[in-house]
Amino acid sequence: MNAPVICGTIHGVGLGPGAPDLLSVRADRLVRSARHVAYFRKAGRPGQARRIAEGMLHPDAIEIAMEYPVTTEIPVSDPRYKACLSTFYEECTGRLRSLALAGEDVVVLCEGDPFFYGSFMHLHARLSGEVPVEVVPGITGMSGAWNATGVPITWGDDVLTVLTATLPEAELARRIADTDALVVMKIGRNLPRLRRAVAAAGREEDAWLVEHAAMPGQRVTRLAEAEGVTPYFSILLIHGQGRRP
Amino acid sequence: MNAPVICGTIHGVGLGPGAPDLLSVRADRLVRSARHVAYFRKAGRPGQARRIAEGMLHPDAIEIAMEYPVTTEIPVSDPRYKACLSTFYEECTGRLRSLALAGEDVVVLCEGDPFFYGSFMHLHARLSGEVPVEVVPGITGMSGAWNATGVPITWGDDVLTVLTATLPEAELARRIADTDALVVMKIGRNLPRLRRAVAAAGREEDAWLVEHAAMPGQRVTRLAEAEGVTPYFSILLIHGQGRRP
Repeated sequence: MNAPVICGTIHGVGLGPGAPDLLSVRADRLVRSARHVAYFRKAGRPGQARRIAEGMLHPDAIEIAMEYPVTTEIPVSDPRYKACLSTFYEECTGRLRSLALAGEDVVVLCEGDPFFYGSFMHLHARLSGEVPVEVVPGITGMSGAWNATGVPITWGDDVLTVLTATLPEAELARRIADTDALVVMKIGRNLPRLRRAVAAAGREEDAWLVEHAAMPGQRVTRLAEAEGVTPYFSILLIHGQGRRP
Repeated sequence: MNAPVICGTIHGVGLGPGAPDLLSVRADRLVRSARHVAYFRKAGRPGQARRIAEGMLHPDAIEIAMEYPVTTEIPVSDPRYKACLSTFYEECTGRLRSLALAGEDVVVLCEGDPFFYGSFMHLHARLSGEVPVEVVPGITGMSGAWNATGVPITWGDDVLTVLTATLPEAELARRIADTDALVVMKIGRNLPRLRRAVAAAGREEDAWLVEHAAMPGQRVTRLAEAEGVTPYFSILLIHGQGRRP
């Protein structure tokens, strides 16, 4: 007779914005001791999360690269995009569930904070209630970005709006005009549209583009001086100007 | 002839939302090795930042408690509030500047992230350019709060709005009605007004109140079931419902 297997735990671990010493102490311990380490990436790329954890994994760690079947090849509004990603997340969930049911813990590496615009949330929603899932919050990419500018993002009663550059241009412009402080995520190929929206809101002089925050190659540029292409993980910022005694 | 003194550095260190193992590895090292440790607090209270660092300070650390001369006794709109705090920040700055000029490093403990609605920013603005100032970003209190609810805050193209409960009621209601995901900070005695604004926006059923996130006594309550008084560091959340393949 076999002893009953104790179910393993799936840990969604926030790695922070990029620097290896900006993981939390809790995340650092989990990542360094993990025997099963999973992460998302675009096929053929190392992946942002895996890159942050470079040099930290246990020599015996088994890596599970979860490669997106599609990123920008199909518009997100296309039903095939949703179907394709849904199947993909089901497959990933199946793999992690099997490991947990066999008694293995798995660490899923997540750039930034796992509950803030992250892919891990799609696994979390499917695994919760089936196997134990724990989440370790992380320093967000946007904290890394405003830290890189050396200027605080919000003072006093400042309103902060966080947008994705995937929104319609008019919607972006309306919201950019109606906030004190601003963060825009998911820029990449949407930069030209975002630029027009910032200009329409009359705020081009206040806008900063941060690339590779907290990583080698960190770069802070005025939006007005930015070039036409920027990485997906770039972040646009407008700093609040609120009360400062 | 004396050797020239090398100027010390003022480190504004983000401690994260509350749990001692949610400091970053960089912050943890700085806090544990610091010989001069400064923090803000209300007179007669231990202070949130100092409480997070409990048990971590070096036995020889010299503590510098910077006690607010006023918190809620004078309305922030009163000119005396601004004058009083301005004098206070000048005094704090003077103390830290003297230490740095004498060659001493100082760690300033900051709850959450130092550049996100924090008092340290008022020292940073005054010290920058005079002595070396370094900032370590931290996990924000709001990340701790949405982590406590066990539910992601933003999906897909969700818009996130961060407000302070100190804003006028109509302004709160307008913005709460016009966002997908919501975070409200600085609640404390503003809870009744915030409640009315959430109700006016028709979103009372979706709103959660998080008290003492990532700390002993962590409590997550539906706003509808919350009592009349809540700590200053409570956070109100409405989770986004965006795209999820």
